[in-house]
Amino acid sequence: MTVLKGLSAFPITPSNADGRVDVAALRRLLARLVEAGVDSIGLLGSTGSYPYFSRTERRRALEAAVDETQGRIPIMVGVGALRTSDAVRLAQDAQAIGAVAGLLAPVCYTPLNDDEVYEHFITVARESQLPLCIYDNPTTTHFQFSRDLVSALSRVPEVIAVKSPAPEAHLAQVHHRELRAAVPPGFSIGYSGDGNSVEALLAGGDAWYCVAGGLFPETCMTIVRLIQGRRADEARRLNAALQPLWDLFKEYSSLRVMYAAANLLGICRAQPPRPILPVPDQVRQRIGETLTRLELR
Amino acid sequence: MTVLKGLSAFPITPSNADGRVDVAALRRLLARLVEAGVDSIGLLGSTGSYPYFSRTERRRALEAAVDETQGRIPIMVGVGALRTSDAVRLAQDAQAIGAVAGLLAPVCYTPLNDDEVYEHFITVARESQLPLCIYDNPTTTHFQFSRDLVSALSRVPEVIAVKSPAPEAHLAQVHHRELRAAVPPGFSIGYSGDGNSVEALLAGGDAWYCVAGGLFPETCMTIVRLIQGRRADEARRLNAALQPLWDLFKEYSSLRVMYAAANLLGICRAQPPRPILPVPDQVRQRIGETLTRLELR
Repeated sequence: MTVLKGLSAFPITPSNADGRVDVAALRRLLARLVEAGVDSIGLLGSTGSYPYFSRTERRRALEAAVDETQGRIPIMVGVGALRTSDAVRLAQDAQAIGAVAGLLAPVCYTPLNDDEVYEHFITVARESQLPLCIYDNPTTTHFQFSRDLVSALSRVPEVIAVKSPAPEAHLAQVHHRELRAAVPPGFSIGYSGDGNSVEALLAGGDAWYCVAGGLFPETCMTIVRLIQGRRADEARRLNAALQPLWDLFKEYSSLRVMYAAANLLGICRAQPPRPILPVPDQVRQRIGETLTRLELR
Repeated sequence: MTVLKGLSAFPITPSNADGRVDVAALRRLLARLVEAGVDSIGLLGSTGSYPYFSRTERRRALEAAVDETQGRIPIMVGVGALRTSDAVRLAQDAQAIGAVAGLLAPVCYTPLNDDEVYEHFITVARESQLPLCIYDNPTTTHFQFSRDLVSALSRVPEVIAVKSPAPEAHLAQVHHRELRAAVPPGFSIGYSGDGNSVEALLAGGDAWYCVAGGLFPETCMTIVRLIQGRRADEARRLNAALQPLWDLFKEYSSLRVMYAAANLLGICRAQPPRPILPVPDQVRQRIGETLTRLELR
């Protein structure tokens, strides 16, 4: 069975202005995830700002996470990079340090075609032997995965999973059925995009790659356990109650909101990597009020 | 008067598979530009794959260019990076080594807003004191510069120029007039997108940021001198004759075509940085035939 199922929690990576990871703050975030018993940790995802960190800092973050979790929670780590050779080295690091999987996005500057992305993936897979999750995130990479390309990649032995943007709720069933038909049995299909993920999981998705879960694992675990227990209505109700949070994500991006929230909760004092700016004061205040009202802590 | 006027030639940056710049091959490319007397060199632009190279390699490339040109041709160099702190260091390097300007794109992973891009630019400007050209390249950065943002940035003392994608020919006049009205007198407005640039220059553009000129400087200089001599019809004719090259650029991207062309001409043996792949054999052959037919050598 795949390790990528249930709740995969995606924390921010606290750092200073020079891009040095604040390992103590990261450990505080990870300790919450261990305590809540999330199914996996998505370290250095987009919310974890992986492309903004040097190889050295990505190593430091992963070493701290492996040490903090002590094998109790599987760790998937972002290994994406603009250059194939850099992605290979990051995947080799991840393999050596003890990640169970690498999350690989086709990071683009010059727009890439399907052949290029396919070659990129198989090179990283071959050179690292690390199990890989296809990271389909057109908001950041601007690369559009065709179903055919996902299907082709899913036949590569090291490629074990895909993280797709969750479609609008009313499209979840059709989208999931088509995606499932394109990949081999046992291949893990997971979803990101917090507000829409519940319907995608109810449609049969294996995993929720979850930004909110990186800071509020208890709440998100409750939703996942309800889904797994076929208590769809309760899961939907809890998800709907979080709508003010999903609205903030939509308006300011989940990354910016999570930085503000982690600071408000006193877990870290860190800002997103520049040029990304912290949200303005009045937005931070609204985030604080939302957390209080939703009893997120 | 601005140094950024006339033909700014944008060469590829030949390198090996590990991302080490082939300085000898780069010097051969630059020698052609010096020989042709281009008005400036756009080193490490998008065609020069700047974001795919380490800081060390970007320094090596610029040092070689400064040495090869010996002050005869002003050099603008790409200083863009995902992180503001990295862009600052690259701009400081450029200033120290002897570039006359830095070409700064808002390289994005997490999509940026206008405030973030503005802060990014003024930080790089303040910390480096390097004259900067705004690099508006939505095809690679996916950031859309509003006219208001260009206008605000054009008031920053170090920001001296903008490199805009040339609009469709029939929009060139209106586009240029509106852009001119948004910036202070003397601010350099230049265009990229080789096929459409001639009309943008005829509409009053100061500079042609030119990929083809990085390999075929004589031909592109001829066009620019015709425009400067108010011989619009002849410039248009020569530009139209190059349509088979512009078509290849459109179909396969100018970067991929220029790598194939530089190899076919025997100037270097280099491929684009992976994951970008060389064009397939039959396309390379078509490029070769096009160069022969257009007498580009």
